[in-house]
Amino acid sequence: MVADMPSAVLPTFADVEAAASRLAGQAVVTPLIESTLLNDRLGSRLLVKAEVLQRTGSFKFRGAFNRISLIPEAERARGVVAFSSGNHAQGVAAAARLLGMPATIVMPSDAPAIKVRNTRDWGAEVVLYDRWKEDREAIGARISHETGATLVRPYDDPYIMAGQGTIGLELADQANAAHARLDAVLAPCSGGGMIGGIALAIAARSPGTGVYAVEPAGFDDTARSLAAGQRLSNAPGASSFCDALLAPMPGELTFAVNSALLAGGFAVTDSQVAEAMAVARDHFKLVVEPGGAVALAAVLAGKIPSGGKTIAVVCSGGNVDPDLYAQALASAGRR
Amino acid sequence: MVADMPSAVLPTFADVEAAASRLAGQAVVTPLIESTLLNDRLGSRLLVKAEVLQRTGSFKFRGAFNRISLIPEAERARGVVAFSSGNHAQGVAAAARLLGMPATIVMPSDAPAIKVRNTRDWGAEVVLYDRWKEDREAIGARISHETGATLVRPYDDPYIMAGQGTIGLELADQANAAHARLDAVLAPCSGGGMIGGIALAIAARSPGTGVYAVEPAGFDDTARSLAAGQRLSNAPGASSFCDALLAPMPGELTFAVNSALLAGGFAVTDSQVAEAMAVARDHFKLVVEPGGAVALAAVLAGKIPSGGKTIAVVCSGGNVDPDLYAQALASAGRR
Repeated sequence: MVADMPSAVLPTFADVEAAASRLAGQAVVTPLIESTLLNDRLGSRLLVKAEVLQRTGSFKFRGAFNRISLIPEAERARGVVAFSSGNHAQGVAAAARLLGMPATIVMPSDAPAIKVRNTRDWGAEVVLYDRWKEDREAIGARISHETGATLVRPYDDPYIMAGQGTIGLELADQANAAHARLDAVLAPCSGGGMIGGIALAIAARSPGTGVYAVEPAGFDDTARSLAAGQRLSNAPGASSFCDALLAPMPGELTFAVNSALLAGGFAVTDSQVAEAMAVARDHFKLVVEPGGAVALAAVLAGKIPSGGKTIAVVCSGGNVDPDLYAQALASAGRR
Repeated sequence: MVADMPSAVLPTFADVEAAASRLAGQAVVTPLIESTLLNDRLGSRLLVKAEVLQRTGSFKFRGAFNRISLIPEAERARGVVAFSSGNHAQGVAAAARLLGMPATIVMPSDAPAIKVRNTRDWGAEVVLYDRWKEDREAIGARISHETGATLVRPYDDPYIMAGQGTIGLELADQANAAHARLDAVLAPCSGGGMIGGIALAIAARSPGTGVYAVEPAGFDDTARSLAAGQRLSNAPGASSFCDALLAPMPGELTFAVNSALLAGGFAVTDSQVAEAMAVARDHFKLVVEPGGAVALAAVLAGKIPSGGKTIAVVCSGGNVDPDLYAQALASAGRR
């Protein structure tokens, strides 16, 4: 692929490998960890990709850096613009700073405070909008038109998908080094960019491993779209504390990849997610935000038969406001 | 050194290197991580050795495995015995299980529940004692005498020190890979085994780097002993929520090493520790127990001049009961 390719071109495994080269020395190679005691309890081998340790506290830095690093020299001074509820915001802001470019981020006024503050601390200009009354895509397009800034989409972009796919590349290598033959990989899904990128990498590096998208209950558009064979939207009115996973429907490019490569999808409730956040604290010593914990929640809740299996889950982000974190942990049962 | 050496022989850097060979593939090479935003705030480069990700959730596995793996074949069936408030307990229990040996652990009845439960889950027999009325060393010695089990000391043992020292070996290599020239390394200190082992490694691999012990206020026996040039005990009556760091005075072997190699020691209050636990949550996405957070607390509290410097801290454990963790975070200010 080249930088000015039409956006409708799908990413390939070669794009994931190219992204890995660009990210070398920039992104953290996050560890793949496990807990013997939790494995004993589950009767399976559970590997956790600790992506909360990524730069900016979530996987989003990978795709953002890969995408932004491809902006031609002549266009860099005009900067980038993105809209995001928070993790993409920070990923874009950090990547832009590292590449010496200005960034404007359009964020909902009810985004977690930690995400807004960190985005500003990375040096980006934050433009807040009302999630219920204003159209973030229109605001982003207007800013891009007025300033000439490159719009960096959150998921429906082949370079974004390829960047997130480097998680799958690392995961396959690390599982191999740990003598683990992966039966399944589960990762959180909103627009579908991360799971699609991972699926590209796993299909190439660990064929035979099932890749599954996990979404919050009420926002399982990808699972339902996979089952229906066409893109479906979420019904209005649902709510979830997984603020990072509220995309209304699968992306066009992401669904094209995911419908070809994914084995299926699962949905988990907020209380199952809170339980997973507590398990992440107790067994992995990781702070995981609600949206980052859905894949772990799916395994713990028995959504996929795990007995005797080796399953990897991505814990994709840890940017959670202190009060919400405390509430979630307090609501979880004791193990 | 050989397995039946007199206990008064001091460990050397060669022992740390030998320990690293024994631990290869058994212990986790824990990542060295940093936060650009926190570095911005501090005006320095702060590297965190995320030892909470170690097997059993603390550094203690390293020393325990190194020590227990040297027990001769003929003595293994008789097992091991140890006394510990919790992290050494889990380290010994896990190492014994991996080496196919029975373990008995003498723990105070007021040890954190998570540490007692995990020690049992690793397959060890737990013997509880009253911290105020009974002598744990006497109980351990009696069990060792009756069963023939090898006593595995928590810190005053050259193999334990050498095992913990592998943290310093990894830290020096990882700092080098990150193009960081370390001005100082700070680690938590109770009996002094970890800091002593780290000092051996840093003296060999990163000469010129100052190594500092950090203790809870009221339990700064090592800092005061270093200043006085002789082993001093803590005054009775102090209290701290750093349950892992309440040793009454420096060990004999550990002080011999530490008085030769350490640049000094610092003491931090419980409220400074709580603040550090919140920073670990927000900036590093790590769950750190009170005793594991004292070195980070010392840097954040300005105990060591950090402006323009590169400083590494060890976050040494994450085994904290949920209620205490919630209380500590709730008591910390907001950043």
